[in-house]
Amino acid sequence: MTDANALRPLRASAVTEWDLRADVVVAGYGIAGVCAAIEAARAGAEVLILERTGGWGGAAAMAGGFIYLGGGTPLQQALGFEDTPENMETFLLAALGPGVDQAKIADYCRGSVEHYNWLVANGVPFREAFWGEPGWEPPHDEGLMYSGGENAAPFNALAKPAPRGHVPQMADKKIGRKSGGYMLMKPLAETAESLGVRVEYDLRIGRLVVDDDDRVVGVIARRYGKEVAIRAERGLVLATGSFAYHQQMIEGYAPRLIGRPAAAIEEHDGIGIRVAQALGAELAHMDATEVAFFGDPQLLARGILVNGRGQRFIAEDTYPGRIGQATLIQQENQAFLVIDETAYEAGLATETSTPFFRQPPTWAAETVAELEADMGLPELALQATVDCYNLHAASGKDPLLGKKPEWVRPLRGSLAAFDMRGFTAGFTLGGLRTDLDSRVLHVSGAPIPGLYAAGRCTSGLCAGGYVSGASLGDGSFYGRRAGLAAAKN
Amino acid sequence: MTDANALRPLRASAVTEWDLRADVVVAGYGIAGVCAAIEAARAGAEVLILERTGGWGGAAAMAGGFIYLGGGTPLQQALGFEDTPENMETFLLAALGPGVDQAKIADYCRGSVEHYNWLVANGVPFREAFWGEPGWEPPHDEGLMYSGGENAAPFNALAKPAPRGHVPQMADKKIGRKSGGYMLMKPLAETAESLGVRVEYDLRIGRLVVDDDDRVVGVIARRYGKEVAIRAERGLVLATGSFAYHQQMIEGYAPRLIGRPAAAIEEHDGIGIRVAQALGAELAHMDATEVAFFGDPQLLARGILVNGRGQRFIAEDTYPGRIGQATLIQQENQAFLVIDETAYEAGLATETSTPFFRQPPTWAAETVAELEADMGLPELALQATVDCYNLHAASGKDPLLGKKPEWVRPLRGSLAAFDMRGFTAGFTLGGLRTDLDSRVLHVSGAPIPGLYAAGRCTSGLCAGGYVSGASLGDGSFYGRRAGLAAAKN
Repeated sequence: MTDANALRPLRASAVTEWDLRADVVVAGYGIAGVCAAIEAARAGAEVLILERTGGWGGAAAMAGGFIYLGGGTPLQQALGFEDTPENMETFLLAALGPGVDQAKIADYCRGSVEHYNWLVANGVPFREAFWGEPGWEPPHDEGLMYSGGENAAPFNALAKPAPRGHVPQMADKKIGRKSGGYMLMKPLAETAESLGVRVEYDLRIGRLVVDDDDRVVGVIARRYGKEVAIRAERGLVLATGSFAYHQQMIEGYAPRLIGRPAAAIEEHDGIGIRVAQALGAELAHMDATEVAFFGDPQLLARGILVNGRGQRFIAEDTYPGRIGQATLIQQENQAFLVIDETAYEAGLATETSTPFFRQPPTWAAETVAELEADMGLPELALQATVDCYNLHAASGKDPLLGKKPEWVRPLRGSLAAFDMRGFTAGFTLGGLRTDLDSRVLHVSGAPIPGLYAAGRCTSGLCAGGYVSGASLGDGSFYGRRAGLAAAKN
Repeated sequence: MTDANALRPLRASAVTEWDLRADVVVAGYGIAGVCAAIEAARAGAEVLILERTGGWGGAAAMAGGFIYLGGGTPLQQALGFEDTPENMETFLLAALGPGVDQAKIADYCRGSVEHYNWLVANGVPFREAFWGEPGWEPPHDEGLMYSGGENAAPFNALAKPAPRGHVPQMADKKIGRKSGGYMLMKPLAETAESLGVRVEYDLRIGRLVVDDDDRVVGVIARRYGKEVAIRAERGLVLATGSFAYHQQMIEGYAPRLIGRPAAAIEEHDGIGIRVAQALGAELAHMDATEVAFFGDPQLLARGILVNGRGQRFIAEDTYPGRIGQATLIQQENQAFLVIDETAYEAGLATETSTPFFRQPPTWAAETVAELEADMGLPELALQATVDCYNLHAASGKDPLLGKKPEWVRPLRGSLAAFDMRGFTAGFTLGGLRTDLDSRVLHVSGAPIPGLYAAGRCTSGLCAGGYVSGASLGDGSFYGRRAGLAAAKN
């Protein structure tokens, strides 16, 4: 990809022979790609998926599997949660901004119940069970969980809390326990292939092919070093994932992620973004990042999280991804969990304390003053924080940050602190600007003819915030739109 | 600019007649444009500047005029400050990151003394006087000042402090007192015109013109609605400024600036970025923003600045632009200055207290507890902050944030607090990715033939930080490079 022509669009007249062709060509066999393929096939198009690895799945199949859905899905209703598209929209506008694509959020919220039903109709299983404890994922195969801080400050005062993290059932009698993401991808891939969708593996896409009117009519890919020319009669759908592993893009667009790409992203190389940029595609929110925080939410909620100055900065019972973003972006990646022995033992004793995220205490002390000194903080820095917290916690309140009363209790007796500096990693949320039909927009504002995109190579619902399930959510939702629009082109 | 073809490159074969032509065409007559024009003309090229307004100046002429220079300039030396390119580089790498263009910073630091001499040789006056008080600009016509927090924590421990804010003398017997930016632009514009550089005013550039090899050979502009085709024989230099006033770009790339573009930016519309994007140009650091903070630095240094939770977050004696960035990006634009009566009076009494930035106190009280309650903060939130500050201030120390001893004194007696929420505004720092010869880079990594850029339509020295003088600095420095490279093309 280093030579100057690697990404430059190629004129169709320069292609002497097309090696493969289909009505709709989809690059990438992750969540966005499979949904595009299904809808394009159902709309009557011959569909070909190009996948660089040897199988379906992409990052989706390795993910926890949350799909962010709401507005009153059958699962929400069955479990007794009230929600409306408007309520969901109010929350998302507050949680994902500033600068969100408001039209996309409104559209997504209004289409959310239908999308849930579509997933179920295509074989994705959701078990009617709610998990309400702090955590990253449900511990068993519960189908619904809070996944964005809807029930924590400050959002619980802005919109009626409703859980919207829908998780495909993580177990199957035949295949045993799998991730939610696998259980999402498997039925969809089976659906796609039952509809006659063809797949070519081990193909990496490169430059796009355009006709004399700058309409995208194909793509040049490589398989084991050999060029393969693929004709897309009606449209090409880019569904190639984020740029979390493209070093120069990370440095230039999202430098807070230098050295900390999230592991599940499978070397996402930004290729879909880059080939479209070469055609003049507009981008959006290239600095936006999902940020995981490697702390046990059951312990976080019971303690206080302080920054490098010993100050609290976030309600510790909120969505841990929000803690990760606040830590990385606002606190220079400095975080320490301070907790007393009673709360620590209580957290560890819960069934859902997450051993993977559990760390041994870095410091332990009998008094706050001692702990503060051990941590290298100035005298009174941590003490002042604990004094303020304890004063209000005595009456079950947290007026500073709004942690819910159930998690508020004065810190007393022996204390421990956990050094969580640098305990973050993430993936990128920015990418191609697309419209509600997943058409890739040119910098002029008009769609680029023949080119569609969905998933994490696009800028979706998120700008400055994140909720778990937003990526599989907008990837699947706008993947469907892309497939449909390309098929009808 | 709303029609689909507005920004799409036009084939040269479609241009029936060229209205204007020159060897080197420069779009924009601000700091980057004038420097490009001078160097191109000196290298023997016929130069034509296209300017959308009716005169020279751009944002530069309305700016304070800082140029960030160092490494041992004659002015630094004459005023007794030691500096080296390496020391300057160490500071800039720490202050402007993460994700800075390291090659550009190294290059800029090594060329800085020569660049100072070039400016002086072209008529830019710098008076041999240093101003060492906190402030945004020198109060008279002093030529040198700290303009990036070099002498404040944490940078004073990382590199040897040296002032690098070089300010053109803000007075002239003939024309009276002007801004430093005006006094920078005036001699350079006179130099350019003395070299035979032609200028066409009231021309707004649009789509670029390319030959069949995708080399840029011209640009289509508009004057009072009429299209004007301009041929650039050797090269086109984009020097059209930031995108601070392009609403969609702000929402999509730098949403923290929604509703708060800095006033001096003269409706920068991002056009240079957009026409190059349409050719597949790579971008960088589109979220990066300079942020002004509308507080009087003489008061800030003497008080404590707290966030919406009553917590200190930055050494109050640092560069106020750094305070602005920290407030907007890390503190959700929440800031309050707390100061006692003695310090307030002392600050106001200084000659250099800045009336423009002075605000009346929002609250006044006899005790911290009372003030805290008036401000609506939870009990002990502000008290805890003041207790910790005062404890250490009694011995002239600030171990929490490293404010210098000269500004550290316990807060005592009557107190006032100033509500500074939302007291920020800024401009954008991201843009086209260019190399050290100011060639615009394609997303493939190779330069786009015939296309050069400098100034705030490019990503220059800054990524996540800013120093006053970085924009006029890299704009002038890489403007020169652009002119030279285009002339030699």
